[in-house]
This record gives sequence, structure tokens and C-alpha cells, in this order.
Amino acid sequence: MISELYKGMLSGKSVIRELNEYATDVSRALGEENIFDYSLGNPSVPVPQAFNDKVIELLKTKSSIEVHGYSPSLGIPSVKEKLAASLNRRFDMHYTADDLFMTSGAAGALAHAFRLVTQPGDEILTFAPYFPEYNPYVNLTGAKLRVVPANTADFQINFDAFEAMLGEKVQAVLINTPNNPSGAVYSAETLTQLAALLTRKEQEYGHEIWLISDEPYREIVFDGKQAPYVSHFYPRTISCYSFSKSLSLPGERIGYVAVNPDSGVSKLLATMCGQISRGIGHNCPSSVIQLAVADTCDLTADLSVYETNMNILYGELTKLGFEIVRPGGTFYMFPKSPEPDAAAFSRKAMKYGLVLVPSDSFGVPGYFRMAYCTDTQKVVRSLDAFGRLVREEYGGSL
Amino acid sequence: MISELYKGMLSGKSVIRELNEYATDVSRALGEENIFDYSLGNPSVPVPQAFNDKVIELLKTKSSIEVHGYSPSLGIPSVKEKLAASLNRRFDMHYTADDLFMTSGAAGALAHAFRLVTQPGDEILTFAPYFPEYNPYVNLTGAKLRVVPANTADFQINFDAFEAMLGEKVQAVLINTPNNPSGAVYSAETLTQLAALLTRKEQEYGHEIWLISDEPYREIVFDGKQAPYVSHFYPRTISCYSFSKSLSLPGERIGYVAVNPDSGVSKLLATMCGQISRGIGHNCPSSVIQLAVADTCDLTADLSVYETNMNILYGELTKLGFEIVRPGGTFYMFPKSPEPDAAAFSRKAMKYGLVLVPSDSFGVPGYFRMAYCTDTQKVVRSLDAFGRLVREEYGGSL
Repeated sequence: MISELYKGMLSGKSVIRELNEYATDVSRALGEENIFDYSLGNPSVPVPQAFNDKVIELLKTKSSIEVHGYSPSLGIPSVKEKLAASLNRRFDMHYTADDLFMTSGAAGALAHAFRLVTQPGDEILTFAPYFPEYNPYVNLTGAKLRVVPANTADFQINFDAFEAMLGEKVQAVLINTPNNPSGAVYSAETLTQLAALLTRKEQEYGHEIWLISDEPYREIVFDGKQAPYVSHFYPRTISCYSFSKSLSLPGERIGYVAVNPDSGVSKLLATMCGQISRGIGHNCPSSVIQLAVADTCDLTADLSVYETNMNILYGELTKLGFEIVRPGGTFYMFPKSPEPDAAAFSRKAMKYGLVLVPSDSFGVPGYFRMAYCTDTQKVVRSLDAFGRLVREEYGGSL
Repeated sequence: MISELYKGMLSGKSVIRELNEYATDVSRALGEENIFDYSLGNPSVPVPQAFNDKVIELLKTKSSIEVHGYSPSLGIPSVKEKLAASLNRRFDMHYTADDLFMTSGAAGALAHAFRLVTQPGDEILTFAPYFPEYNPYVNLTGAKLRVVPANTADFQINFDAFEAMLGEKVQAVLINTPNNPSGAVYSAETLTQLAALLTRKEQEYGHEIWLISDEPYREIVFDGKQAPYVSHFYPRTISCYSFSKSLSLPGERIGYVAVNPDSGVSKLLATMCGQISRGIGHNCPSSVIQLAVADTCDLTADLSVYETNMNILYGELTKLGFEIVRPGGTFYMFPKSPEPDAAAFSRKAMKYGLVLVPSDSFGVPGYFRMAYCTDTQKVVRSLDAFGRLVREEYGGSL
């Protein structure tokens, strides 16, 4: 019979989808050019030309079997060697090809990571604010996602709340730094404290606790900094990476699982990923895309527009009185809503053509998310709408 | 803790892998050129040039966002429109784009199909001989795969055994025509009888029984024929297709689910696939590959070599006394082993450089599978080895 589970999920309301429908109505009234859509996290800069050039070169110079033939289920070994070498060079790690497993983006990587270290009934903890898709990603494996309340002071970790929730049933902790939606980058201090707590609880409970690190925004860090590399802090780390943002090719669905060799079981876990794939129908990302990222993995798209946009928005919105934790990376920011009901605020903002996502689905009430992966001229043009919103709806000051 | 389920699967022995290891030893003795490897079902002909040309054109003429941007989770609408139109033209169907869901090959399609219409504990029936990967594909969903014994007369369906196993817990029946490993193509009579039995049992049990049709070999049919299109025979058919074999690009992982619109719920099921994806980390095949197959879906690679090879092998092996049901399609054949222990036969064949897969893992004892997706000259050179095998191991006649 038709699955009631998946049929039932269709009636779940998506805040972003509702917002987009409302935006369509508003855009009819205001005109397309006066709609400032900050709702969707789609990279807006082009892929590096070298990536396309590499694909074309492969198609023109290699045999069809080499480019389009079956790749091994764990990924193409020469590709994984290049990716491991790049990680080792950039993050002072010591991965081998056998510690990596090629996936269809970060979603594919997470689907494998959860199944590697949890059973149905186990708990996975994550931290608000968080990417709402983590709910179906985790809960459909049979494990249960529980969300630690936010540290709204700086969107680092609320350690008191975390320790209170870190019970014996927790088999894995899921982090996302740089973070969607807050833009926060976990500091070395945060990661050190996190690792110490996990280690202490492992000893207390007598079982391992794995750290699953969702890292698609790893290369989008501001102020010339680099995000602390999570595996440096904790041996039982499973990094889930996607090239979607760094190379600006989210449609190509390419990423990997990289298991920290210090765990002592990295090769076992990478190999187990191939077994998990058999049940979830994964069976490798595209071979030509694997081959092309192997040669371009040290490049990024021109990500500077995201920092430019962040600085403009952070500067002007704080001048208007918005409270914002300044993002350390990503292309998101997460300002406080001027009124406690973020959905009410979003509806008001829409009247001015501003499409802003209320924070409730990210696990924190009273904030809103802005995805500023958009044209800088449009960002500048939106500032007037923010000004009118504050003047006309909130009496000119927040 | 590390999953015992997936860890345990690593110790499962693969007959084909063992055979390949043995083959490596033998090839040291005989020399690489005297090894005739009929074990692996990898397409050996190149992709149509038009496919590569289309990829290059897309990369050179379209914007990065159009080619590499996020695609909708159900697949790119314009791609699905072209595929639906092609199916309608070729098979006299009436699909719309909304009846299709784009997947990472047939494995991805099957992973969605099983979850659409079964719950954990339900049974799915398939027919021996069958693709052994169906076991993990089905059983890891929580449903249970049960195998109907073969009709060895012609590798159509053993209806007596099928009806005996078609109990109330069966929610879906999985077929694969043209068939790996037998090469059999289900006749219109077989499909008519199958549909009639399913319809009768649906009424008897008061629930639907879905037909999941795994169709990657649909375009590899011999003697100028066309395989009867399964959806014509039964309204509740879910076709699972891959371009791996027809376009010879198994590494690109591209295929689709097509739900028969006569089921009355095709759009519902296609949309539900998007929900299933969220739990299994699927999230679309590559966008550039989707766009390229849309324009080349009416083409095939030059598949004629498979028929050439089949005719040579069928002719010469039957002359040597092998009993073979002549394949109607695919690039496999499934001769009877000259002795009941097919593994013992395979070991003897290996001494002559012939790598042949014993049939036990396909659910039938006493046969062997040959994948003849290989160079015709090598096929011809292998005939002498078959002759020596029969003379020296079986006294010259079978």
C-alpha cells in the first residue's frame, strides 16, 4: 500500500514555500524589480572556469569508459587521493584516500554518516539555530534528532543546555560550522570545550559519541580568517562536505565523507559507507564530476561578494537598530526580529518587498534569516525598503 | 556506536569478487591476453558523441546558474517533459512530466519505488534468476525480498510457484525484463498472465499490489524486436529506468522513476519520491547530466556488438553441447552448467582463462552467467578455450 509516512509528509507546511507564494502576490503589486528576495540559499556566483574547462578536456581527450564508466562504489581512488592530499595540505591532516567516501553532496554524506554510528531509537543532538532539513534527514533513519537551545549571545554553543541534554542515548552530535542560518563560525575555544565534554561523557557512559560535522560553508569565512578544522579537536569526527558552495555547483551533487584517521576506524567506516549505499540507492556521484572536482578542489568560485554583501547589510541594518550577531562566514545572517513574533515581522517586511524567513523553523523564536547570496546592487537597493519598514511599521527606531 | 548491521555486511562474500581474485592468480600464469573475463556487466561501447557534444554546448553557452544551479528535488521540469514525450512517442504512453522523478540511475529509482509502496515487514516477490543486489536493496528498507523459483524452460515466469508465494503480505512484485542474468525478455503473454493474477489477488486480499519494473536493459533487444512495455499491461506499474546501458554511461548515475498514469495516483507517487529523498540523502542527479540526457534520450550507444557477441557465443556453445535459453536481449546469457555444482564448473573454466560466474547467487543452482559486453575479437578468441574446457574436463561432449 502507498506509504502513509511519505504521503503524510506532503502536507507538512514549508515556511519558505508559503513565503514565496505570498511574495508572488506582492510582486504583482510592487513589480518584480522591487522584490528583494533574501529567502533562498542558492549560490549566485559562477563556477570557476577551470571546472568547466576540465570537464570539456575530459570529454574530449579521455575514453568513454574512463569518463563515463562505472566508478568503484566508494569513489574513484585517484579522485580521493587528490582530495585527501588537498585536505592534508590545507588543514594539516593525514587522510588517505581510504578515509574518504564520495557522495552526492552533503545531504548524501549526512545520510551515510547518521547510519554509520546510530541505530533506530538512538538520539542525535544538534544546536539551534539549525538547518530544518536535519529533521527529516535524521528522523527518517529511525534515530531521533533533539535540538539544544541556542546561545543567542554569539551563536556559539549553550554548554549548560547541551550537557543537560547529553544523555546516555546520544550516540552522535551534529554541528554545522560555519553555520546556516546564523553565519557563526565555531571558535577553537568552543570546539575544545565541545571535545572535552564529549570525551568526559564517553567515559561516563562507556560508549563512543561521534561528532558529525556538516561543513559545506567551510571556505566561506570572512575577515581573512579560516574556520578551525573540526577534526583537529576530536578524533571521532566524521566530516560531511559538499562542493556546492565553494565551487558554486549545487546542482552537480558532489561531496564526500571524510572520517578522521585518529579515530582508528576511519577505513572501516569509509568502507561501511559502501554497504549503506546499497540500501539507500546512492551508488556514487557522477564520474565525470568526480574527476573534474579532483583537479579543481583547491579552487573556489569568487566568494568575495558574500562578504561585501554581509558588510553592507550588517552596517546598515545595525544603524537602523537591528540587533545582529555579526556573521563570521556563510552567506546568511540571523538578526533579531523587532517584535517577538518573527512571522508577523516577516509579513510586514513583505509589504516593502523584503522576503525574510522567520526563525521558528530554525529552532529559535524571534529572529529572521537573510540569505544574501545575491547581487550587491540589489542588496544596496534593498536598504531603502528596510528604512521604510522601520519608519512606517516601528516608528523609526527599534 | 558503529553500526553492527553495516559492519557485518562487510564480511559477506561476493562470488564475483572471489572469482576476480582467483582470475588475477590465473592471469599471472596464463598471461593477461589469455584471460576471457565474462564476469562483469560493464557497458563496453562508447557514449553517443551527441551526448558529450551536448554537455560541452551547455557548459559553453548557458549560464553557470542554469547548468550547475540547484535543480528542483523532483527533477528539472523541462527535462522530465522531454523524457515523458519520448516515452509517449516510443511506447504509446501518456505520461506527463509530473509522473516522473529523476534519480541516480536504476538503483536510486528502486530505492524510492520500494519505499513508495511498502512498509517494514511487507514482502516483495521477485523471480529467479535475479540480480543479487536486490537483496540489500529491498531488505535494508525493512521490507523482505522473497524469490520465486525459476522457470528454467524459458526463464519466463513459473506461475504455479508464483501464485503459491503470492500471499497477503506481498505488497509489490519486482520484475526485470529484459533480464539480468538470463537475457530473457518477458513476452506479452507472460505480462498479461502476470497482470491478471495480480488483479485477482488484489481483489482477494482487498489491497493493491504494485508492480515494480526494473528496466535498464529496455533498449537492448535482439532480432529487431522491441520488449513489451510493462506499463501497458498493468496500471499500478512503477518503471525504474537507467540510461547506464542505453547511452553507455553507468558512471553518470542518471535515470528516473515513471509511474503509470493509469494508476490514478502517479502524480502523488512522483511527488512522494521527493519526501523519500530527504531521508535517504538522494537529492537529485547531476543537473548538467539531466540536461544532456533530455536532449539525447532517443539515442542509444551502438548496441549492436552485444547481439553480434550473443549470436557467436550462442551458436558455438550450443555446438559444444551447452544447454542455453537463447537470450532475447541484454548482454547476458545463462547457460546450464555441465555439472550440477556450478562453482566447481567455474573453477575448472578458470584454468582455461574463462571467468564465468556460477549461478547460485542469482537464485538458481547449476547455471552460470556470461556478461558478453566485451570486444567481439576477444569473444572469438575465447571459443578455443571453451573447446579445450569441454574436451579436457568433460571428455569432449556435454
